[in-house]
Amino acid sequence: MKAYKIPEATVIRLSIYSRQLSNLRKAGVETVSSEEIANSVGVSSAQVRKDLAYFGEFGTRGVGYRVDELLGNLTKILGLTKEWNLAIIGAGKLGSALALYEGFRQRGFSIRAIVDVDHKRVGLDLAGVVVDPLDRLETLIKERDIKIGIITVPAAEAQRVTDRLVDAGVPAVLNFSPQVLRVPPHVVLRNVDLAVNLKVLSFNLSHNS
Amino acid sequence: MKAYKIPEATVIRLSIYSRQLSNLRKAGVETVSSEEIANSVGVSSAQVRKDLAYFGEFGTRGVGYRVDELLGNLTKILGLTKEWNLAIIGAGKLGSALALYEGFRQRGFSIRAIVDVDHKRVGLDLAGVVVDPLDRLETLIKERDIKIGIITVPAAEAQRVTDRLVDAGVPAVLNFSPQVLRVPPHVVLRNVDLAVNLKVLSFNLSHNS
Repeated sequence: MKAYKIPEATVIRLSIYSRQLSNLRKAGVETVSSEEIANSVGVSSAQVRKDLAYFGEFGTRGVGYRVDELLGNLTKILGLTKEWNLAIIGAGKLGSALALYEGFRQRGFSIRAIVDVDHKRVGLDLAGVVVDPLDRLETLIKERDIKIGIITVPAAEAQRVTDRLVDAGVPAVLNFSPQVLRVPPHVVLRNVDLAVNLKVLSFNLSHNS
Repeated sequence: MKAYKIPEATVIRLSIYSRQLSNLRKAGVETVSSEEIANSVGVSSAQVRKDLAYFGEFGTRGVGYRVDELLGNLTKILGLTKEWNLAIIGAGKLGSALALYEGFRQRGFSIRAIVDVDHKRVGLDLAGVVVDPLDRLETLIKERDIKIGIITVPAAEAQRVTDRLVDAGVPAVLNFSPQVLRVPPHVVLRNVDLAVNLKVLSFNLSHNS
């Protein structure tokens, strides 16, 4: 099971399946077919089976998948049995919104540090985490075992804080800034472009009519 | 060119290519190969060529693509030659962050209305748009020709405001709430799960070491 063999699109779908399964479990559903998963996500059932086949044999022909069991397996595959400690760099509107976003905590992501360069924001309490000055970044990373840094600072500052995260040994960076960031090959980087979702809607609106 | 023939993953990649091309143009680059596009996005060059082939012949063998021309074509394909008017439902931290997000305006998305049920938020100015009371939703949609509604309200309220958008004739909904929403088939819906990005990082962190 090597990461480089698995297409990123598959990993994204697996995480969406895990969310659907989690909703099904909450609703008390015990078994589910690949068709039902496929329909709720908007892909083909062949795609669901192919995505899962990367990781072994799941489910029983004619019966489907046990929701509990498949969710457990996906949780393991996605590395979500471990709790990952996060730091948010930038406590502006977006940083604060992410700090308060319940979806992170519900899925095993724990926001352990929030830092900002602006002294007016230092000391604010965001869902139980107090904003620290940016100066303390390296200390916090070490003390609180930070594995993922979330960049919400302005574009002009983004590379500088990313370099500090990398130098302090943070192995993964989630970039919400519009800046294209450079990281060394051993660091995992993901760029979030909130406008991508709007472009997909724009495409659909343009081609539906 | 019918939307249903084009895989969603392709549309997502096209919008990422368009962002890269826009960065290249800003940097003064005039031509680019499919390999260069592929490397900057993290897919294969065959994938880039396949994605573009859905829409016709672009580029010249051995020379590559003219950045300006390909960007213009992608802009047309994605429906971004038109300006889309958006309304944000919910002026909390996330709604405010989105209202201030520069990436939307830069790409032809214009936030024309922001509404909230909380009277303490009504009257706030977010990047030039004043927060209106939720009661005015239907009037604003009509007056300001809103085509995309962005849901940032709590899960418990999300379906109710979505129904109001749909009844008022809004053809597209972008859902940031964790609620699974129901819309009629003629309405385009996209769900944004901010935790998906963290799950992909978690997967990579788990399988890299």
